[in-house]
Amino acid sequence: MNFSSKLLEEAVQAFATLPGIGRKTALRLALHLVNKPAEQTEQFAEAIQNMRRNIKNCQVCHNLSDEPVCTICANPRRDRSMVCVVEHIRDVMAIEETAQYRGLYHVLGGVISPIEGVGPKDLNLDSLVTRSASGEVKEIIMAISPTIEGETTIYYLSKQLQPFEVKISVIARGISFGGDLEYADEVTLGRSIQARIPYRTEE
Amino acid sequence: MNFSSKLLEEAVQAFATLPGIGRKTALRLALHLVNKPAEQTEQFAEAIQNMRRNIKNCQVCHNLSDEPVCTICANPRRDRSMVCVVEHIRDVMAIEETAQYRGLYHVLGGVISPIEGVGPKDLNLDSLVTRSASGEVKEIIMAISPTIEGETTIYYLSKQLQPFEVKISVIARGISFGGDLEYADEVTLGRSIQARIPYRTEE
Repeated sequence: MNFSSKLLEEAVQAFATLPGIGRKTALRLALHLVNKPAEQTEQFAEAIQNMRRNIKNCQVCHNLSDEPVCTICANPRRDRSMVCVVEHIRDVMAIEETAQYRGLYHVLGGVISPIEGVGPKDLNLDSLVTRSASGEVKEIIMAISPTIEGETTIYYLSKQLQPFEVKISVIARGISFGGDLEYADEVTLGRSIQARIPYRTEE
Repeated sequence: MNFSSKLLEEAVQAFATLPGIGRKTALRLALHLVNKPAEQTEQFAEAIQNMRRNIKNCQVCHNLSDEPVCTICANPRRDRSMVCVVEHIRDVMAIEETAQYRGLYHVLGGVISPIEGVGPKDLNLDSLVTRSASGEVKEIIMAISPTIEGETTIYYLSKQLQPFEVKISVIARGISFGGDLEYADEVTLGRSIQARIPYRTEE
């Protein structure tokens, strides 16, 4: 790209560091800000700086939080006997979106992946063991991607949690609601037949 | 979306004000910055603030510039007898990318569009007339979108520029190189036949 302005070029480069934003999109975003009132850019930059400077990880569940303990962990109406273990912060948001779960969470920050050099020490595993040891937690739900790395992480965690009286469960896997059998992958389809459940009519 | 953090929510809202960035993408961008070192966010925000605070429009051609006069207008090796009239700053960059043009530019900032309430007074038309009146400009090339609004703007400008000894030309329109006749729209195809040119072999 031929920039007549170094300032524009630097702003485009800044946008292009973001994931999924190429040079052309970065240029469109930078020019958008140039064409809008200057206050809008100030507000935009401040919101992002403010977030990065002040956001914390919850001391209990490692979810993003404005306070030392997040709003979910601090909520007295949450069921403290259940902990849902997820890989990422966005998984917490996805589960909250369903409004089907009233327990607490634990964000691992990823899964064990020897190929990518992620070992148990790089994840929030020890704090989950500590939480389980307290005796308050009765059930741990593993809501982790059904990949080889995910399965490895679940297996590792189940071994670590064995000494405690905690029920460990895994979220149901199978064909999506509205999904087409024809387009489901073989592993999912095969396992969904093996893991079939008795048919019940809702009463 | 269920945000456990107000700070994150505000950053997501800030990203979502940008064109083509929806809520899900905004969340992905905000979480990307949270997961990277804090300096990266500072540099990102500063590059954008710095651009917005210090960027100017060139006094001559209205292109974006770090100085009162842009690098193209200030370049003594540019052909000062030709002015290419474009709608937007990004059109200047697109033409510069071709490396086929060595003249100057004039950025209108849009086209005359009564429907969108854009009249001649909202565009950089008067300064083009002033530039043409100086006598230095011999040819004005209209590189404006071939839409009804674009054609109207070219017509309006040609009337305004009539008093001066300036040749007015329009960029060639027709079938794109590599374009497929089958997929060309009727107007383009029809006009490309009407505006046919004698065949010449390169010698």
